[in-house]
Amino acid sequence: MTHHMSAKTIKSLHQKKHRKETNRFLVEGGKNVAELLASTYEIEGLYATKEFKAEHAGLLAKRKIEAHVVDAAELAAFGTLEHNDGALAVAVQKKPETPDTSAGITLVLDDIRDPGNMGTLIRIADWYGIANIVCSINCVDWYNPKVIAASMGSFTRVSGFYTDLASFLKKQSAPKLGADLRGTSVHAFAFPKNGILVIGSESHGISADVAKQLSGKITIPSFGKAESLNAAVAGAIILDRWKSGI
Amino acid sequence: MTHHMSAKTIKSLHQKKHRKETNRFLVEGGKNVAELLASTYEIEGLYATKEFKAEHAGLLAKRKIEAHVVDAAELAAFGTLEHNDGALAVAVQKKPETPDTSAGITLVLDDIRDPGNMGTLIRIADWYGIANIVCSINCVDWYNPKVIAASMGSFTRVSGFYTDLASFLKKQSAPKLGADLRGTSVHAFAFPKNGILVIGSESHGISADVAKQLSGKITIPSFGKAESLNAAVAGAIILDRWKSGI
Repeated sequence: MTHHMSAKTIKSLHQKKHRKETNRFLVEGGKNVAELLASTYEIEGLYATKEFKAEHAGLLAKRKIEAHVVDAAELAAFGTLEHNDGALAVAVQKKPETPDTSAGITLVLDDIRDPGNMGTLIRIADWYGIANIVCSINCVDWYNPKVIAASMGSFTRVSGFYTDLASFLKKQSAPKLGADLRGTSVHAFAFPKNGILVIGSESHGISADVAKQLSGKITIPSFGKAESLNAAVAGAIILDRWKSGI
Repeated sequence: MTHHMSAKTIKSLHQKKHRKETNRFLVEGGKNVAELLASTYEIEGLYATKEFKAEHAGLLAKRKIEAHVVDAAELAAFGTLEHNDGALAVAVQKKPETPDTSAGITLVLDDIRDPGNMGTLIRIADWYGIANIVCSINCVDWYNPKVIAASMGSFTRVSGFYTDLASFLKKQSAPKLGADLRGTSVHAFAFPKNGILVIGSESHGISADVAKQLSGKITIPSFGKAESLNAAVAGAIILDRWKSGI
C-alpha cells in the first residue's frame, strides 16, 4: 500500500540528513522506478505520469501499489532531475550485512565523493556481476538521488556497505588489489579467481592506511598525456580484464 | 595581454548562443586553467586566487598574462562550478580542420548529449593518445563549461570536429568500428592497426544512417544484469583493448 505524501516530505529527501532520519530515499525516472518495482525494495509512495502507470500496470498490481498520477512538471518540481517524464518513488533504505569476500569479486571504494561516479560504479559492478560494494565512510551517500539516478536501476541488484576500510580489509583473507599509478600493468596482471578491488579517489588516490592493507597494485598504462583516468573508468577497465580472464 | 571583463560578459558564456556569437569560452578550476596556460589557446581574461597567481607566476609571465586577483566566492559567482578555489579564464575557441583518419585511432561520437560523458571521453582520448574526436552535430557543445571541466585539461590536447557523421564516414577508407550490443566480443576482436571507433548515445546507440557505414561491430560481454554500460566507460574498455593489442 502507498499513501499520499506532501511535496515537502518528498523534497526533504533531497537531503542526506532527512534520508537518514526517516530511512527513506527517492528513486526518479522511468527506468529507475521500473527497476525498483521489480526489486525487493519496500515502496512507500509512487508518483507517475499516466503513460508510466499504463505501461507498468502489471508490475504495479503485482506489488499492490497505487500510483498517484502527476505530470512531468510536477515530477521535476518534487524531484532533483531537470526532466522526468516517468515516475518518482519514495522507498525504504536497506541496511546490508557485512559482505562475504571469499567468493567472487568485491569492489571497495575509498573516498568516492562524486555522485555521478558512484552511480556509474554501481552500474559497472552490476554489469560485471558483482553483488557487493564496500564504501569508506567519506564516500557520497549510496541513497543520494544523483547516485541512484546514475546507477540506472543497478542499485537494486548491488549492495552498498559503509565501514572503516582499513579495519575491514585487515580482517579479509582474499587478495586485496588496488588501482594505482605505480603497479603491475593491467595488461599483464595475473588476476586471482576471487578477490577485492580497491578504487581510490580521483584527487588523492587510495588513502595511506588503506594502501597498507593491499596485497597487489594494478596500473592502467597510458598512451598519451592525461594525468589520470576517471575513477569509474579505471574500475571498469580493470574489471573487464579480471572477469574476461585476460 | 588580458583585459578586465564584466561579470555579465563572463556569465553570458555559460550559454552556447553567446559562446558561438563571441567565439569565446570559459575554463574553470585550477588544474584546467593551468593546462590552458600551458596550451596554445589564446587567453583573453584570467581571474585567479592569490594562491593560483603565485603558484603559476612563471607560466603567467611567459604567456604575458595579467591575472586579476579574486576570491573563491567570486570565482563561483562568475562561473558554473559550485566550488572553485583556483582560477577562471576566458579563451578563444579553435576551429579544427577535418581530421586525417589514415593514421592512428580517431574517435567518433554520435549524439553524446551529457556534458560529463563528453568531457570524460575527451580525457579518455587524451589518455590513449588520440588526437581527434569527430562529433555529430547533435552532440553537446565541445566548449560547454561542464564538458571543459570534466575533460580535466585534456581539451587542450584533443581536437573536436563537428560534422554530419554519415557523410564524413562515407569518405573515410580506414576501418570503421562501432560499439554495439550485437557484435564481436571485444575480448576476441582482431583490431586493425589504425581506424575509427564510433560510440553512440546511451539511449539510442549508434543511429541507423551511421551504422550503415560501419565495417565492424564490437561488443563488451556482460557478466551481470545491467542493461548497458555508460558510453564513456564502453569507449574506454574498447580503446584499452585496441591500444594494448590484446
